[in-house]
Amino acid sequence: MVDAVDLPRNEEGIGAALGILKQQFGEKCQTGQSVREQHGHTTTWIRTQAPDAVIFARSTSEVSDIVKVCAAHKVPVIAYGTGTSLEGHVNAPAGGICIDLTEMAEIKAVHAEDLDCVVQPGVTREQLNTHLRDQGLFFPIDPGANASLGGMAATRASGTNAVRYGTMKDNVLALEVVLPSGEVIRTASRAKKTSAGYDLTRLLIGAEGTLGIITEITLKLQGIPEAMSSARCSFETVTEACQAVMATIQYGIPVARIELLDTMSVKAANAYSNLDLPDTPLLLLEFHGSEAGVTEQSEVFGQIAEEFGGSGFEWTTKAEDRNKLWQARHDMYWASLQLRPGAKGVSTDVCVPISRLAECVTAAQDKATELGLLSPIVGHVGDGNFHCLPLLDMDNPAEVAAGEEFVSWLNDMAISMEGTCTGEHGIGQGKRSYLIKELGGAVDVMAGIKAAIDPDNIMNPGKII
Amino acid sequence: MVDAVDLPRNEEGIGAALGILKQQFGEKCQTGQSVREQHGHTTTWIRTQAPDAVIFARSTSEVSDIVKVCAAHKVPVIAYGTGTSLEGHVNAPAGGICIDLTEMAEIKAVHAEDLDCVVQPGVTREQLNTHLRDQGLFFPIDPGANASLGGMAATRASGTNAVRYGTMKDNVLALEVVLPSGEVIRTASRAKKTSAGYDLTRLLIGAEGTLGIITEITLKLQGIPEAMSSARCSFETVTEACQAVMATIQYGIPVARIELLDTMSVKAANAYSNLDLPDTPLLLLEFHGSEAGVTEQSEVFGQIAEEFGGSGFEWTTKAEDRNKLWQARHDMYWASLQLRPGAKGVSTDVCVPISRLAECVTAAQDKATELGLLSPIVGHVGDGNFHCLPLLDMDNPAEVAAGEEFVSWLNDMAISMEGTCTGEHGIGQGKRSYLIKELGGAVDVMAGIKAAIDPDNIMNPGKII
Repeated sequence: MVDAVDLPRNEEGIGAALGILKQQFGEKCQTGQSVREQHGHTTTWIRTQAPDAVIFARSTSEVSDIVKVCAAHKVPVIAYGTGTSLEGHVNAPAGGICIDLTEMAEIKAVHAEDLDCVVQPGVTREQLNTHLRDQGLFFPIDPGANASLGGMAATRASGTNAVRYGTMKDNVLALEVVLPSGEVIRTASRAKKTSAGYDLTRLLIGAEGTLGIITEITLKLQGIPEAMSSARCSFETVTEACQAVMATIQYGIPVARIELLDTMSVKAANAYSNLDLPDTPLLLLEFHGSEAGVTEQSEVFGQIAEEFGGSGFEWTTKAEDRNKLWQARHDMYWASLQLRPGAKGVSTDVCVPISRLAECVTAAQDKATELGLLSPIVGHVGDGNFHCLPLLDMDNPAEVAAGEEFVSWLNDMAISMEGTCTGEHGIGQGKRSYLIKELGGAVDVMAGIKAAIDPDNIMNPGKII
Repeated sequence: MVDAVDLPRNEEGIGAALGILKQQFGEKCQTGQSVREQHGHTTTWIRTQAPDAVIFARSTSEVSDIVKVCAAHKVPVIAYGTGTSLEGHVNAPAGGICIDLTEMAEIKAVHAEDLDCVVQPGVTREQLNTHLRDQGLFFPIDPGANASLGGMAATRASGTNAVRYGTMKDNVLALEVVLPSGEVIRTASRAKKTSAGYDLTRLLIGAEGTLGIITEITLKLQGIPEAMSSARCSFETVTEACQAVMATIQYGIPVARIELLDTMSVKAANAYSNLDLPDTPLLLLEFHGSEAGVTEQSEVFGQIAEEFGGSGFEWTTKAEDRNKLWQARHDMYWASLQLRPGAKGVSTDVCVPISRLAECVTAAQDKATELGLLSPIVGHVGDGNFHCLPLLDMDNPAEVAAGEEFVSWLNDMAISMEGTCTGEHGIGQGKRSYLIKELGGAVDVMAGIKAAIDPDNIMNPGKII
């Protein structure tokens, strides 16, 4: 629906490549309508654009083989992990071959002594963390969905823990990548830091599969903290909650998570997760450290919250209580949908300097009200990043138009505040026009890099650029 | 001397560009031999290659003007900060114009509430930290030299604090860059995180001026910790010291600094800085946090050190005592030179997974001994990064050859251990052959990016690629 323009199809090339790939991959190359549509389906309001075939690759050399065939025939190649991206990243606007990487799900090595591991792209974050738990290690990036680590790298994912542990760009040491030619490269060594040439690792992270397909990832790991505590505190207004966030970050408390739920989200959580939180904006926090450390952090936050009129401050190290609150936070998408059963929730994200956060969130609430939209807000507010979820009746064109106006307004507002049109969802198809508004001539440089690395534009065409 | 091959000069273009630039910049365009040689002089054993002129730029638009003239005449342009790079980064192997950025030294904005600031490239880290002190903020990256922040970004600098605060790649939010065409772009917004397109910020950081000239930097800042403590502990062997480092990192102690001095370095420090440290390998640490936090960190480290035979463990929060030790660490280069007055100290760096650190350091010591070289070692060992400083009589060709063999051997050893030929010094001219050994086909991708962005190869030619 939004910005899902079809691109010219290379029918001859697609036919030729498909013939070869069917022979080469047999049953692993699927062309049934449902599997194709599932792989070209976004979780948002962007129209499905199915690829011509889906191949379930089992190794780097298979990915390389597929790409070589597609390169020879100038056919699009789209990498697919768990399909949880939100801006039409996996759509196939010019058709082509989708490479499903979920069967490349081996954890190849865990180097506990180096705090790193090597995984295939189809490994999900939950699979990895389950595997690591016995060794006292974890991988901190948590975008909510149980996404694949290849997809998380390709989209520069982050989520609730980013305020403490950074985003995927900060937690990947090296990548193995299949280039548009089919050639396989490694971007870096396993050293913790490097000054060896251009940072291809970071260039590929967030390139959304437009420059190559990630076939192996070397990830930094963290020791599971000795202690964790969670805290919650309610505020009269979003402004006061955001001021408390700003003070907490400025004070230097190394919060592991600091999440905002606006009043509408709190009501949704109360109903869905059977909680009895006060119906006002809420901050939900997590602290990692030593026993003494998390106690200190929790208590200092409590004092800061009080300064900004916080009420109902509670903190706990009990796993059961902590999990209940964080489960409610993770269920916010489903809880929000229950505010208006049958409506489509269109998740969008922006990120602004934290000094502008209160202003931006409040303005977004006002704008939604002005447009007659129900749009709960949650945010990874320690980074100035928040999500709006307009709940739309997709059969009502006026309401969809209002939703589009809202998203457009929100992106413009964030950009005008020296922020970005996307803190963590990425550009995909949906935000290409805002990328140009945000970065102007830098997008030409991106296009130049794309043309240099992928001259025939076969890698996930129609995304970012 | 090492790898400083002259490249073909575009005499006609240089003459034409110089004529225009002299007229345009008057006294700001200098062609005297001493200023030219100073700007093409490396601090190491790589031969000086002077540019044809040095222009002291005062603004982004002046940089853009210079680059446009050079682009029109296909003349090399080399950015210059403080000239403290170590691998021939500022050499002019094909002549051309050096742009000295030291007069672009304005701190344009400090956004204390957002923990960021905007600086021109000639601002040095000490200048910035002096400016920030009253606001309770600091910029953590400390490569030793009082380098310019533009140069630090261009070379992806790091140093002693990187184990806690990361490298330049982790502490820059956005760049303003003059492209090889003279066009000016911004790579990102001021948001703390972003998924908006290719990560041009990270691509430019560490590109050593080969893709563009950095004319403005938006930096992340940190609050000055409530408390700091320093600790020191001596060990019988480098292996035990490294094992203590590994255990400290694995335990999750958020050390701000953890530095190794081998026995030879300790002796040099004792003599130069009038200390009485035991003549055995030493770890020097710094902890940042709350009062309770640094006490806890220091004491836990003490217990770990004891497990590995550490002796003489002491820790203190007294600024005077802390500064004395860290000053000695910062003076190590000068202290080491006193081990052999008149010799040239050739600083080289590698970085390996921390599990291989003891083995790599020990092997380096043995190799130096085998080659008859005096080569003290210090290291930012929390990252697996260390420096060797062979002290060479440059008038003795056999010794210089032994030095070259040592450096070559060290790079190969690091690469064979899944490490990198440079953790923080960069590639410049000196390490180009090792970059290819380390990353193979990925270097072709770098070359493709270089050709796309700088088709006439005017930006710092002969470096990295």
